Parts: sequence; C-alpha cells; structure tokens
Amino acid sequence: MPDTSKTGLVITAHPGDFVWRAGGAIALHAARGYRMKIVCLSYGERGESQFAWKTAGVRLEDVKAQRREEAERAAAILGAEIEFFDAGDYPLRVTEEILDRTVDIYREWKPSFVLTHALADPYNFDHPAAAHLAQEARIVAQAAGHKPDPNRAYAAPPVFCFEPHQPEQCGFQPNVILNITEVWETKRKAFEVLAAQKHLWEYYTRVALNRGVQGGRNSGRPMTYGEAYQRLFPDVVQELG
Amino acid sequence: MPDTSKTGLVITAHPGDFVWRAGGAIALHAARGYRMKIVCLSYGERGESQFAWKTAGVRLEDVKAQRREEAERAAAILGAEIEFFDAGDYPLRVTEEILDRTVDIYREWKPSFVLTHALADPYNFDHPAAAHLAQEARIVAQAAGHKPDPNRAYAAPPVFCFEPHQPEQCGFQPNVILNITEVWETKRKAFEVLAAQKHLWEYYTRVALNRGVQGGRNSGRPMTYGEAYQRLFPDVVQELG
Amino acid sequence: MPDTSKTGLVITAHPGDFVWRAGGAIALHAARGYRMKIVCLSYGERGESQFAWKTAGVRLEDVKAQRREEAERAAAILGAEIEFFDAGDYPLRVTEEILDRTVDIYREWKPSFVLTHALADPYNFDHPAAAHLAQEARIVAQAAGHKPDPNRAYAAPPVFCFEPHQPEQCGFQPNVILNITEVWETKRKAFEVLAAQKHLWEYYTRVALNRGVQGGRNSGRPMTYGEAYQRLFPDVVQELG
Amino acid sequence: MPDTSKTGLVITAHPGDFVWRAGGAIALHAARGYRMKIVCLSYGERGESQFAWKTAGVRLEDVKAQRREEAERAAAILGAEIEFFDAGDYPLRVTEEILDRTVDIYREWKPSFVLTHALADPYNFDHPAAAHLAQEARIVAQAAGHKPDPNRAYAAPPVFCFEPHQPEQCGFQPNVILNITEVWETKRKAFEVLAAQKHLWEYYTRVALNRGVQGGRNSGRPMTYGEAYQRLFPDVVQELG
Amino acid sequence: MPDTSKTGLVITAHPGDFVWRAGGAIALHAARGYRMKIVCLSYGERGESQFAWKTAGVRLEDVKAQRREEAERAAAILGAEIEFFDAGDYPLRVTEEILDRTVDIYREWKPSFVLTHALADPYNFDHPAAAHLAQEARIVAQAAGHKPDPNRAYAAPPVFCFEPHQPEQCGFQPNVILNITEVWETKRKAFEVLAAQKHLWEYYTRVALNRGVQGGRNSGRPMTYGEAYQRLFPDVVQELG
Amino acid sequence: MPDTSKTGLVITAHPGDFVWRAGGAIALHAARGYRMKIVCLSYGERGESQFAWKTAGVRLEDVKAQRREEAERAAAILGAEIEFFDAGDYPLRVTEEILDRTVDIYREWKPSFVLTHALADPYNFDHPAAAHLAQEARIVAQAAGHKPDPNRAYAAPPVFCFEPHQPEQCGFQPNVILNITEVWETKRKAFEVLAAQKHLWEYYTRVALNRGVQGGRNSGRPMTYGEAYQRLFPDVVQELG
Repeated sequence: MPDTSKTGLVITAHPGDFVWRAGGAIALHAARGYRMKIVCLSYGERGESQFAWKTAGVRLEDVKAQRREEAERAAAILGAEIEFFDAGDYPLRVTEEILDRTVDIYREWKPSFVLTHALADPYNFDHPAAAHLAQEARIVAQAAGHKPDPNRAYAAPPVFCFEPHQPEQCGFQPNVILNITEVWETKRKAFEVLAAQKHLWEYYTRVALNRGVQGGRNSGRPMTYGEAYQRLFPDVVQELG
Repeated sequence: MPDTSKTGLVITAHPGDFVWRAGGAIALHAARGYRMKIVCLSYGERGESQFAWKTAGVRLEDVKAQRREEAERAAAILGAEIEFFDAGDYPLRVTEEILDRTVDIYREWKPSFVLTHALADPYNFDHPAAAHLAQEARIVAQAAGHKPDPNRAYAAPPVFCFEPHQPEQCGFQPNVILNITEVWETKRKAFEVLAAQKHLWEYYTRVALNRGVQGGRNSGRPMTYGEAYQRLFPDVVQELG
Repeated sequence: MPDTSKTGLVITAHPGDFVWRAGGAIALHAARGYRMKIVCLSYGERGESQFAWKTAGVRLEDVKAQRREEAERAAAILGAEIEFFDAGDYPLRVTEEILDRTVDIYREWKPSFVLTHALADPYNFDHPAAAHLAQEARIVAQAAGHKPDPNRAYAAPPVFCFEPHQPEQCGFQPNVILNITEVWETKRKAFEVLAAQKHLWEYYTRVALNRGVQGGRNSGRPMTYGEAYQRLFPDVVQELG
Repeated sequence: MPDTSKTGLVITAHPGDFVWRAGGAIALHAARGYRMKIVCLSYGERGESQFAWKTAGVRLEDVKAQRREEAERAAAILGAEIEFFDAGDYPLRVTEEILDRTVDIYREWKPSFVLTHALADPYNFDHPAAAHLAQEARIVAQAAGHKPDPNRAYAAPPVFCFEPHQPEQCGFQPNVILNITEVWETKRKAFEVLAAQKHLWEYYTRVALNRGVQGGRNSGRPMTYGEAYQRLFPDVVQELG
Repeated sequence: MPDTSKTGLVITAHPGDFVWRAGGAIALHAARGYRMKIVCLSYGERGESQFAWKTAGVRLEDVKAQRREEAERAAAILGAEIEFFDAGDYPLRVTEEILDRTVDIYREWKPSFVLTHALADPYNFDHPAAAHLAQEARIVAQAAGHKPDPNRAYAAPPVFCFEPHQPEQCGFQPNVILNITEVWETKRKAFEVLAAQKHLWEYYTRVALNRGVQGGRNSGRPMTYGEAYQRLFPDVVQELG
Repeated sequence: MPDTSKTGLVITAHPGDFVWRAGGAIALHAARGYRMKIVCLSYGERGESQFAWKTAGVRLEDVKAQRREEAERAAAILGAEIEFFDAGDYPLRVTEEILDRTVDIYREWKPSFVLTHALADPYNFDHPAAAHLAQEARIVAQAAGHKPDPNRAYAAPPVFCFEPHQPEQCGFQPNVILNITEVWETKRKAFEVLAAQKHLWEYYTRVALNRGVQGGRNSGRPMTYGEAYQRLFPDVVQELG
C-alpha cells in the first residue's frame, strides 16, 4: 500500500480521457516521484471505440479487452497504476459497489490531489457521472462511521477538473494552467497508443500548445505545452506572491 | 420506417406540453413535409388532469385513457405521429427500457432536430427528466457498440428546448424565435382539444403573440405569432447574413 | 392533525443542520404560534458524528440512538415536532417510500413555508439530496391523481433554503434575512445540546451576528442576530413598501 | 415637502417606461396613500417618438413638449408627481448635476421603495444608465459628508427593477410579483394617453395577464393582473410565513 | 454609397483583431458578394506594436502609419473596405463624435450582420469598449429623432461577437461556428501581413482547426477550418431543420 | 525605487478597505520581506466618516486630514507605504491623470501580486471604480508605446480581489484563502486605529475567524484567522500537489 510518498488520483470515464486531458499532469507528477493512480470506470467499449466496431461481428468482450490493453499501455507510459471498474459506457452507471471501492481508494491513497471530468458535459453524460463519483467518494471517505477506524487519518484532497472536448459548452472555467512542457514527449507517446484516434493526436497537441501560450501570457514566463484545469475548492495558501 | 424525408422528434413529459410549447413547430414542419414524431412519456394522468379527478371514484386507467385519446387527437391535428411510454407522472421515472426505446427512435428517425423541455424546472421535475432522457438517448445513439451495425449512419441532431410555463424561473434563455404565424390556426385548434384547460388557451395565445412581437423586433420583419426556443448546441453555418 | 393554526416545515439531512442553519426560524415561528415540524432524513450517524466514532467498537445503532436523542432534545428546545426517516447518511439515499411519506406530510401540514438545504453543496451531497426531496414532494403533493381526494385543498408553499457552511461555494444567494434576535437565547440553548461540536457553537454565533449586521444595513433598522435564506420562488405581494 | 406619509420613487429613462412597466405599482401605492414621485430622465424625444418624426420638419422641441405633456397626463392618471431632467435620449447621458439632484430627491422623499430599470438591456442603453443613476444616487445619499447636516436621518430604500421589454435578454430575474388587479383600469387608462403606441397597449395587457397567472400559481391565490419586479437587495423580515 | 448588395460591418479595437478573429467571415462574405466594411477604432499603436517600439526613438506617428498600412493591406486581401477612427489604444476612449460617425455608418451600410468583440475581456479593456460602441451605435441608429429623415428605413442587424484570445476568461459562449474552409488560404495570407506577430499565425491556425473539428462534431458534416461566434440576440427563423 | 525585493500592490477606494479586507495580507507579506505599497484613492471623507460629520460645522479638509492621518498610521502598523490620490468619494471619479500615475506605479513596483476590490458592489460604487482602475492600469502598463522604453521589462501580475462587506451580494467567489494567523495581532492593531468604527472591529474579527475555519476545512490543516480572496486570472503552476 502506498503510504509514504505523495500520490495523485485520476478518475475517468473512458481510457482516452486520461490521456488527452490529464496525460501531462500524470506524467509530470510521476516524474517527480508521486505515485499516480488512474481509476478508469469503463473501457469506452461502446461509445469510444468506433474503429473496432467497423468489423462486423466483433464481440463486446473483444473490444473491451483491446481497449483495456491500450489503456494499460498508455498508463504505463505515463507512469501510473490503473484500475478498471467495468461500469459500462453509453451509459455509464455508477453502483453502490463502485462508490464503496472508490471510497477505499481515497482512504488508501490519501491523494494530494484528484483529477476528474468537468461537472457538466452535454455531449457525454458518462463524464459528469465520473466527476460525481469522484466528488461523492471524496465526501464519504471523510465519514468516521463508514468502515470506522479510530486510527484513520484522512483529509479530503483538492479536486481539479480536466479540460473537456468543447470547454465552453461544458461550463468549464479554467483557473489553473499546468506547465507540462518537460513531459510533453511522454504525453505524446501515450497519444500514439490510441492508434485509432489519430485525428485526436493533432487536436490535443493544438490544445496543449494553445494552453501553453495562455500559460505564458498569464505568468509572464514562457511555456510551450500546458494543460488547463478547473480547481473546484478554494486554494488555501500561506503566501500570495 | 421513415427514411427519405426530413423528420423532427419531440420528447415531452405530458400531453399538454407538446401542444402549448411546441405545437407551432410541429404543425409548421408537418406542413412543410417533415415527418414529425412525438414521444410522450406519460399521460399526465396524475398531475395534469385536475379536472378528471374532481369526479369521486374515477380510476387511474380511465384518466389515462381519456388523456391518451386527447393527446392522439391533438397530435393528429398538428400532423404528427405519437408514441406513449406510460412512464408515470408526478413523479416521472425513466427506466433503462425507456432509454433503450428512445435510442432506437433516434436511430430510426434520424431527426433533423429534436424539441424537448428546458433543462430545469423547479415547478415540475418531470420536465427536466424528459429533457435528460432526450439528451442521454441522443448521446447513446451515437455509440457504435450499442446494438452495433457497421452500416448504420447516424449524426446527433440539434436540440431545441421549448418554453416552460415560467421561463425566467427555469433559467430558460430563448435564442431562437420561430415564426408560427402560418400555422397558428392549427395550433389553436389543438389547444381546443384540451377542453379542461381553457385558461391555458388564453395564456399560451398571449405567449405566442408576445413572442411574435419579439420576433418582429429582433428581425425587423413583422411577425404575429412566435414560439421561443433555446438551442443547446452551437449552430454550424455556412454564412452569417 | 394540525389544521387550524399556521405551520412551518423543515426538511434536513442531518440533525445539526436544523439547529445551526434554521434554529432561529424554528424558534421564532414556534414562539408566534406556528406549529413547526422537522423532517430529519438521517441521524448524521456516519458522517456527522466524528466524536462518537473515536470510541473503538462503538456500534452504528448506538450512534444513531445518541444522535436521535440529541436531535429530539434540540427540537424540543426550539419548539418543534421532529420525525426521522432513517435514510442513512454519507450517502443519504431517498427512496420512493420516503418521497411518499413526505408528500403526505406536505398535505397534512399545509405549511405556510418550507425550509431546506441549498440546491448545491460540493462538500456534502446529502444536503442537495434533501433539498431535492423537499422540492419533489412539494410538486407531487399538488398532483390531484396522487392518492386522489376531490375534497382536498392544497397549495404549494414558498421554499427557503437555509445557509450552508460555506455559502459562496454552494451558489447560495441570500435574498432574505430573518431577524432572530428575540429567540437567540433559545437557538443558543439548542446549540448546547450538540455538546461534541463546540467549535460550531462559536462559528454559527459569528454567522448569526454578521447576518444581523447585514440585516441592519439592508433595512436601516438595527438587528443583532440574523439568519440568511434564499427564497426560491417569486414572492407574491400586495404592496412593495 | 413630503415628510409625513409613506412615499415611493420611480426613476425611468423615458415616459413610456413608467407606464408600461410600473404603472400598476404607481397607481396601487398612490391609491393607498403613498406619495409617489416619478423622475423621468428624458422625454424619449429621439428614440421613443417614431410617430412624431414621421411628420417632415418637426422640431425636437415640439416633440419634447408633446411627449412631456403626455407624460404629465399619464402621471396624473396614475396619481404621481413627475419631474423631468431633460438628459437626452439615444443616448441618455447622466451628468454630475443630474446625480446631485437625484441625491437631493432621495433625501427629501425618503422613499419606502425605489422602482427603476433592469441593470442590463442590450436593446436600449438608456435603461441601464437610468438604473445606474438610481443606484448611485441612493449610495451617495447615504454619505454624511455630502451636503452635511448632522440632523439628517436617511436610510437607503429597497430597489425593485421593473420588467424590460424582453426580460430574458436583459438577465431580468423576477423575484416579486405585485398584484395590480385593483388598479388595472387606472393603468390601462394611462396606456391610452400614449396614443401613438397602441400596439404596446395590447402587448403590456398580455404581460400583465400572464404575470397575473404566474402570481396565482406562486401564491395559491387567484390574481388577474400582475407586475413582475426584481428586488436587488435582501428582504429583511420579521417572519417568513 | 452601397445600397443594392448585402453588406457586413466589422467593428474592432485594433488591426490584428479583424484578422485573427474575423478574417474568415470577412473573406467568406466578400467572396459571396457582400460588401464588407471594417471600422478599426485605433491602429493598435501603443499596445499591439511591441516590435515597433523595440527601436529606440521611434515616433508614435511612425508606428501608427506602419500599422495603418498593414491594416489596409490585410483588409484588401480579405476583400473589405476599412475606415480608421484614430481613437487611441491602451486606453481606447470612445467620443461622442465616434459614436455619431458609427451611427451614420450603420444607417448607410444597413449591414446584414455586425461582427465585434466579446462583451468582456479582462486582458484588454479596449475590446469591450469597441463592443459597447458597436451596440450603442446600433441602438442610436434606430432613433427616428437622431438626424431625422421620414424616408429612412433601418432595422438593427444581428450582432456576433468574435472569439477573444482566451475565450473562457472573457465569458465568451460560442453558439455559432462558421465554416471558413473555403477562404482559409485568404485568411492565412492576411495573417502574413502581420509580420511581427508570427507566433500568432500559428496560434490562430490552431484555433481555426480546432473550431473546425468542433463544427464537424456539432453538425455531423466534416469541416476543416472554423471561426466561433457568439450571437447576442435571438435568431428569428422560419424553420428549425 | 524598489527593485530588488519582491513587492505587493494594494489599490483601494477608502482607507478602511485596506485594513478590514487586506490588512492580513499586507502585514504577512511585509513580515516576509515584501515591500508593500497601498494606493488609496480617496480619504473616505464624505461617505466613510459618519462620526466626523456629527460635529456641526466640521470642514471637508479637516475630515480628509484626520482620515489621512489614520490611514498613514494603519499603513505603518501593517508595514506598508501609502500614497493618496485624493480622487474624492461618494462618488469616486478616476481621471486620466490617476490612471497615468497608477500605470507608473505598476511599472516601478513590478508587483508580484495586486490586491483590490471585487468587480461589483451594489452598496458602494467607489469599490468597483477602484477595481476597474487596478485592472486598466495593469493593462496599460503592458503597452510598449505608453512612455516607451525599449529596456523596460514588465509582466502583468496576478490580481486578487479582497472580500467585500456582503460577499454574496457582490458576486464575490472566494477561490483563495490566505492564512493570516501569524499576523493577526498586527491586523487587529491596525483595526484599532479606526477608532470611530469599533463595530467593524468585531465584524471583521468574526469574518477572519470564520474564513479561518473554512481554510482549515479546505486544506485539512488547522487555521485560526484567514482572509478570502478571488483570484481573477488563471494560476500558472509547475505542480498540482
């Protein structure tokens, strides 16, 4: 069980999400010694695997296995553990068992931060379902009477929403830009695992470059590649400068 | 199965909704050759049938039958097919079976546009439940792995929310005004099927006249009767003028 | 059954909520002859009883009994009846039976006003769950076909959200400040029943004093202690002055 | 100088505004003994007098005189005093002298409430200019060092925005509905003074009827004619029921 | 004077703005026969000419002349007329004379649509100043008593805000995506006139590609290059499909 | 001229504002070696000096001198320089000269952060006027052509809005909580300079304690006294944990 180093937790609906949206943050923190864990609620088997379904007669289990294998490879490139919940997609339905397991993960990992989807996404309801789980499990993990243990120490971590595909349509309000320049090549390598989605490689490379320009503008210090996040809870600080 | 002409799909919680809120759009597009289909999730049997319940001892089944008959007549006047899901009202509960059937309808009809309720309504939770179904089914219908068929072509249609009873209390932000002047008499005839709700005939006639004035102001071209809609997704255009 | 006097209804997720957030309103209206009823959805047994769980081996039933006893004492001090639904907490799950019972309460009590949680609370999902129940039951109670009775008279009451712990994080927009100065000592006595949460006594005393200052500023009349509320539906008035 | 009775103050950009939007409130409070005062910032001479300008060669002064006379007649019918500032329209420009005079009026009248425009109106920038003046003068009137007088007593009154022509486009969020049924005939008579705007007579009659229906729905008590307002500051109350 | 063909009007604070943000729309409509006119409020001489100011001793007039020449070349490439108001930048101050001239332009051009900045931009206050002018002049142009002429016909056109540099920070809510693929090479050529801002060539190429992808997703029809706009007033339509 | 150490800049409308709202941040950063500068736009002589005006015949200049002396003492206690602009209050009017001087200060001080008012305050229009100046000067300071100097280096600093008196009424959305516990005694001493506003000493002590509790909740680390801020631009970071 991880308990000595810093850790980060990523809760996503589908495999592509953690690559396109948070791959830089995962690789960056992994490179700095954080233990990073990805919870992937589904394999994206029905709604994010168009290519696979072009083969007539392909079976759901095959698609799931193929997407799982890809996700594992991408996670490995980024330097993260990955756990799958096989909750289904299109629609993704979160059960009480999934909530329970997620609470346990919060308590075991005691993450320094959590990354998940934006709270709304009219193009994809699996995304807010994952974000809701990330938030509800974070809350339940604080309940002393849930699997009580008087010796447990746990504090709810900050939550950062990663960027949805069409940010303005999702009410996404980026208030943090993370400099991912030093791990860009790693993120790009993880892109390349998702061989069937080449058009998204370029899309998200452009997103990273433009967020990088914005990061430079907002800080006065040059940045090449960035990832945008929306921090949900106030940042508690000892200094403003 | 409709497959050659243009089509429109309307997803409503109760029978009155498609008449008061979208009757003009239905009649107008029907008149222009669109095949129009209404999905009516309930009969409004418990919460929108006050008159019927004034008779002591009336049975739920009788109320449902009476409202169904009315709804069918109103749909016929407007020129639309209607399908009922009998999902109950006050509260309306959407099941996985209902979602599944709605996905099928999206795929069969390939609508050019979808009309449904506003996303919030603090006076009536059946309304956002219907809107949520309309959105979720639209998303699931895109999933290649849901009832896979490599030959299927499907693109998610634009969604327009029709006007709730108290628009400002529902966060309704009209950004489209449809000129329904040429079909006003048809809409009004559909009103008259709803004989127990005469007070609403006048209310929604006034709404239509005032939306018409607003349509005239916003376009510089006179309009007598209008219906207001909130388009949820960006309008993709080839020209602005 | 209460039927002659004015009444007020309070729907809360956990026992502390009605004390910290609405204790002044309860005591004030009780003092003025309103029959006040609290519906307490859970005992706060898992998530709001940290102190109790510090004892190794304590049983859930014991914690529930202890919190119930406290809640009953606090309600008695404030002058209200209390009914528990034992719906669990962290997470609180509202069932159809709970909805049904709440509808009955609305109809029996015909409250002049309802107090409940804010519509969002990213720190505690039990709170919006309770608020959702308060709203949904209020709507269903209007349905003539739900347990039909042609002789029933019922009008949906105004709803006021009480103040969450971190108001700006919950989208709480106070638009009513209630002067609770004359019942402050009663509210404070109810605080003291919650012996394990002494730090909150002072927190909510400060909240009451600062809302009092704001009440004074907004009215031009001095106020010492106040409670802030967000009225959800338009106020219908015969005069503005 | 009014100093013994209750008073109300109305600050509008153009003459029509106080008739269409607040005529009911003016007549109602006048009927109840309030001294009502209208501050009309312009005569609407350039932008709200289309009819007058259809005569070739008409002079600005003539249009102003004609609109002033109409406004005086309408104010008299409603039972209010009226003062004109001749600030121009399309665009209306508020000067420091106008601010100064408005501050004096607040202090002399000590209104129980103030009625003015919504804070935004993308169709008419004179409207938010008037609302800004109403708010700024209300603030300056509180400054002890503005025309100091140690004996002065003054408390800033509540502000209510009246309904703009296209409420949803102006961010207008009605949270108060005033029952104007008993003075409807008076309001309608004031309409008729504005002989060149007959189309608006019917528009605002429909608005009043529909706001009346909404007032009935929100209160459970029948209402025929209503006016919607947005209260800007919290309502400070001694009781919620 | 243009009076027979369709026209479009673009109101921008600085020269770069019409190129990066609206160059596609200008070129596209010009290509379709619209007469396009750009009103450029300043030369961007102080705040958008960093490169020029790197030469010690350069004079303001020289910078203005250089930027003017560039803007004229870019406008010519796009196929538009351009008029400069020399209102200064950083800060841009709109005078009554500028307003008056802009009103005249609206009346002369009778544009089918107007393009301008987003309503807010915390990075650049010249932008909302230009947008405010575009809106105010559009309103004043409707006033019959402003330079009265009983024979004048004029209707206020729809307004579209073009995309700011950091859209989410400006409250920019794109609800229209314009397909500019067929004029992309022209827009790109106009980029290249702005030789000192090569880094923005690539930034806005990426923006156009990503808006193109979004246009494709929202329409179900492929698009390569897009421009995002926010329509401010309701779209008045005769059909939804 | 400060040029070697870190600096912070505070731009406020009236003297009390920097004490109540930002006194902790000023003292904290001063204690850590930042050079802190306060720009105080007025003396609060008319609107924030009720006590002084209770003396009949007191002169404006005397009130200004007295408030200035207090403000200087408070600034000295907090460890900051202070500069007054004597722009007047109720209403405060920002001139081009004031903007020009503020731009110079930004460039001279090159602050690491800027503190100012919330962007809206319906109770006090001087506050948003000061915030607007803080933002506009920050923008103009970036313009290479404003007092050009090819050797100048300048980057726009982050801006934090401090807490208004009634945060929810001002749209204040705190997203940063600063721990000011270690300088609380200094802040409290600065309170005591404002001898005529004793009631606010207690009000803002309660605010600081409650923000401290919230800081503890959001971080999981105890905090006694806090100040809430709203960061306006994205935070650019190298790590999330």
